[in-house]
Amino acid sequence: MQIFGDSKSGNCLKVRWTAELLGRDFTWIEVDILQGQSRTAEFLAMNPAGQVPSVILDDGRPLAQSNAIILHLAEGSGLIPSDAYERARMLEWLFWEQYSHEPYVAVARFQVKYQGRPVAELDPKLVERGRAALQRLEDALQGSKFLVGNGLTLADVSLVAYTRMAEDGGFRLADYPRVEAWIARVEQALDIREPATA
Amino acid sequence: MQIFGDSKSGNCLKVRWTAELLGRDFTWIEVDILQGQSRTAEFLAMNPAGQVPSVILDDGRPLAQSNAIILHLAEGSGLIPSDAYERARMLEWLFWEQYSHEPYVAVARFQVKYQGRPVAELDPKLVERGRAALQRLEDALQGSKFLVGNGLTLADVSLVAYTRMAEDGGFRLADYPRVEAWIARVEQALDIREPATA
Repeated sequence: MQIFGDSKSGNCLKVRWTAELLGRDFTWIEVDILQGQSRTAEFLAMNPAGQVPSVILDDGRPLAQSNAIILHLAEGSGLIPSDAYERARMLEWLFWEQYSHEPYVAVARFQVKYQGRPVAELDPKLVERGRAALQRLEDALQGSKFLVGNGLTLADVSLVAYTRMAEDGGFRLADYPRVEAWIARVEQALDIREPATA
Repeated sequence: MQIFGDSKSGNCLKVRWTAELLGRDFTWIEVDILQGQSRTAEFLAMNPAGQVPSVILDDGRPLAQSNAIILHLAEGSGLIPSDAYERARMLEWLFWEQYSHEPYVAVARFQVKYQGRPVAELDPKLVERGRAALQRLEDALQGSKFLVGNGLTLADVSLVAYTRMAEDGGFRLADYPRVEAWIARVEQALDIREPATA
């Protein structure tokens, strides 16, 4: 499998962590989104949405959308609960991540870290919604080590990606102690070595 | 099953159409989001994200996120391809819908139809990205009757919800003739009776 990804992107790292955890062979092809490398004609032929991550599976067929890719890679593994309701709750987290977490927590980080915007000049709505997302995780982790059931699932893989980088966007993880402890737990389970913020 | 939904919301209608197509018994409980009915303490106890649709399954357990709900309801049905790659492509469309289509096509509609903003005063970026999403559908439907494989899948159910209402947000569906024909095809397959725009 070839993974086309930008190492700065939590969405791309999700795919790498999942492939590594599952022991899948892959080649990582670095695509610098800031340099427009996901908008070239060659890239768009593979993924018309012009987004990373994007993978070419071993049979040569393409697949995009981080959460769709990790769901495909993890089929039949313990990262997807075998219980139908737990599986549905995991999917609920994956869709919530893309709609109500990433557009705030990751976008704040992008604006601060890569566009040089001071934290104080972020759109207050962006900050408010990012905090609401982090608070929802904090609430969900009351009495639970992981987001769904008793073990690591793709919900944790997906949500940890940008949550662990939230301080880059000016959020204070110390305000969410259960989230902080969960990040450490998931990082250990995934053997994540890259620093969360740099 | 109880479906808590706002009839104005394409996300909610997805769930109703899927339940109807599968012949599932359900009760529809109207939740008016404009009146703040998805933000009451009672509602938040069921769905801490404060979003519709939200369902209470027959065993009393809650589930949220439109695409997670329809994936759960449709498990084992023909709405989810049995082929692993086609299933992954269907998931790719579902995540793309929530990240790259709904935030533009549905949000433009919401601002015009429910907040009274003139089409000419929409954020140009919103319009540009909505058009890009419609164009991507147009391209994907070249030579295909449905988005994935040869038959109706949840990708069609999910994407048609706001696409058929796009004119409410000032988009011209006549500019996307394959999309227009696909909308009619999916409406027929789902036996959709409510008007797309009103």
